[in-house]
Amino acid sequence: MSDLLPLDMAERLIREAVAPFPAESVPLGAACGRVLRQPIHAERALPPYDRVILDGIAVSWCDGQAGWVLSGTQAAGHPPLTLGPGHEAALAVMTGSVLPHGADTVIPREDYCREGNALILKEGVTPKRGQHIHPMGADCATGALLLESGLILSPPEMAVLAANGISQPLVSVVPSIGIISTGDELVAPDAPVAPWQIRRSNDYAIAASLARRGLTQHALLTLPDDLAILTQKLGEALDSHDVLVLSGGVSMGDFDFVPKALAALGVQRIFHKVAQRPGKPFWFGIGKSGKPVFALPGNPVSALACCSRHVVPALLHAQGVTLPPRHVVLAEPLTPIATMTRFVPVRLDHDDRGRTLAYPRPMTTSGDFNRLGATDGLVTLPPGDTPLSAGTGLVFHAW
Amino acid sequence: MSDLLPLDMAERLIREAVAPFPAESVPLGAACGRVLRQPIHAERALPPYDRVILDGIAVSWCDGQAGWVLSGTQAAGHPPLTLGPGHEAALAVMTGSVLPHGADTVIPREDYCREGNALILKEGVTPKRGQHIHPMGADCATGALLLESGLILSPPEMAVLAANGISQPLVSVVPSIGIISTGDELVAPDAPVAPWQIRRSNDYAIAASLARRGLTQHALLTLPDDLAILTQKLGEALDSHDVLVLSGGVSMGDFDFVPKALAALGVQRIFHKVAQRPGKPFWFGIGKSGKPVFALPGNPVSALACCSRHVVPALLHAQGVTLPPRHVVLAEPLTPIATMTRFVPVRLDHDDRGRTLAYPRPMTTSGDFNRLGATDGLVTLPPGDTPLSAGTGLVFHAW
Repeated sequence: MSDLLPLDMAERLIREAVAPFPAESVPLGAACGRVLRQPIHAERALPPYDRVILDGIAVSWCDGQAGWVLSGTQAAGHPPLTLGPGHEAALAVMTGSVLPHGADTVIPREDYCREGNALILKEGVTPKRGQHIHPMGADCATGALLLESGLILSPPEMAVLAANGISQPLVSVVPSIGIISTGDELVAPDAPVAPWQIRRSNDYAIAASLARRGLTQHALLTLPDDLAILTQKLGEALDSHDVLVLSGGVSMGDFDFVPKALAALGVQRIFHKVAQRPGKPFWFGIGKSGKPVFALPGNPVSALACCSRHVVPALLHAQGVTLPPRHVVLAEPLTPIATMTRFVPVRLDHDDRGRTLAYPRPMTTSGDFNRLGATDGLVTLPPGDTPLSAGTGLVFHAW
Repeated sequence: MSDLLPLDMAERLIREAVAPFPAESVPLGAACGRVLRQPIHAERALPPYDRVILDGIAVSWCDGQAGWVLSGTQAAGHPPLTLGPGHEAALAVMTGSVLPHGADTVIPREDYCREGNALILKEGVTPKRGQHIHPMGADCATGALLLESGLILSPPEMAVLAANGISQPLVSVVPSIGIISTGDELVAPDAPVAPWQIRRSNDYAIAASLARRGLTQHALLTLPDDLAILTQKLGEALDSHDVLVLSGGVSMGDFDFVPKALAALGVQRIFHKVAQRPGKPFWFGIGKSGKPVFALPGNPVSALACCSRHVVPALLHAQGVTLPPRHVVLAEPLTPIATMTRFVPVRLDHDDRGRTLAYPRPMTTSGDFNRLGATDGLVTLPPGDTPLSAGTGLVFHAW
């Protein structure tokens, strides 16, 4: 086992080798799910004016006064009117409208009666000067830091960008990813399948795993176990994509030509084989122009585990995102492997005390991927001899 | 407050009023994130043949034998060869290949030496008959239930669909959603903004919230506070979309024309105003042909809260998904509202004991949405008089 790289070393080597992706400006409507690459500061104070916070009338308050004359309406989105002279004047105001010039108090609609233009305060209501006004700048000063670079843009950040006039935010470029399956045994999901053949499924799972992280620029390709064809087609894929994610052809079999083909194309091997199960034959290298090449084992559970545990974190990191580790609680005991990190698929459940429980779905063999349905990701068991009891906290990675 | 509908009543009325969306078959590559509407059964036994699980040679085992003659190679993806007669015969086999006819045992590559075609077992190695073979059907019998209807298709389910020959899965139709902002005060993110104007942000946030649930078929529209225009344009929107999500124009102000316009268009009001804060003026109705119309308050925090708490669950439910409630732990004390459900934006953090902590980011007013950045969703505080201490478990909804 001494030729196997420990997991944390593999993670470090990948992080060091994958250069950050560049940033680009995109239309706001296309930015959701992308990684922000600029800090966002408040365009102006918020609210940008003395804001009326409910429907009613705006008046210039005078202690003891109980009647006014309605002289107009201050609608939201219109420049401020000026309250007529004298303490009798009132303007109708709406939630969100600007406080009219000369007004200092808002009286809610339910607190007065109206007859024609005459407004009479209801019995027992005692307004206070300044009430129901949200003063300019109360929420936020101009220039305040609102969003930090490196955030994944989700709904509230989209609102903040829009509200602060950022119509073309700077975000990480989404790399073009070639997802390549290799193996003579593979047939398409819609083709007839002989008993000795396997339907191609890794590329769909890998594409889905990348897409849910916003990595939607990808193309699928299937290649045979033929060194010449592999070398030619992988060369073309390296030319047309920023990142390659392969599956299959990386173990020690006579037809595992992927490392040979990549070497012939000048892809520098960073490592081959990691002390992890599933996923031991994982190969990682960097192409001539710095393009990362992740060559995952062909076994579906291994491929998906390596994608979730290595490819996704690397591509998020290259976009400027570092997600903190997420711990979950083992719902059932699990036994680690003495000399290797063990990955176990789990289904998550949330208890009413706020804990996330991980129900292991260990695969009977690494080919047993039909049982992966309805699992949420995997937990990582560091190498060890001591069985882990239910209740142990472990790091979780989503598929 | 007696005219306000309790939250659970509002939720029930929505669920009852929104008819299930129909199902359609889509190409597998387009199915990720969609809701599966058919159960999936195993197309064939898995593995579909006696599968070799590592690289080496396949032999017909005979106790005490320590040498073989290599007579060929059984590659993955090719029909099974037949092992030559006699116990001397061996065929090279690869991980994943079919076990050749006549073979019953696999000897790993590291357990023998090779000279030409002669293979000699290494000192001290004692193979066992049947080793390193994954028998046909060991993982899964033909017809076994693999995926249930109602699952959201994520990476492992995509692999299961592909592997079982489901190239056109039946999934819920993604409704066409009109996202409509109303208000004279609104200007676009890239337009000049006067102090009394507000940049349009709700539609971007709502679109993002829907998109992250796979509800990507939407169009944005902004309308003024003008009853005639609203009625005409909302009528057109009802014709061209399956669902409308409006924001603004639903409180009691003189220019809050949305309920009037919807009534004129024959949209049946199911309710107006819910005992919740933010989001009290929320209006919900059903158009003539059963199309749901969610009219959210215009305030950005209120709009996003109503989207997350009402619109998203309703549209998931109509697709056949019912997500169990997710509880998180309050990291800081919070005070409920006596007569209304309170929603508080929170940022989630995960401790190493598997608990999800919710750090409240209460808004100083419901207009304070600049501070929503980097929050993850909201917690729901039922109406009550007793302050909730840190450590209380509350239901969480993601934005």
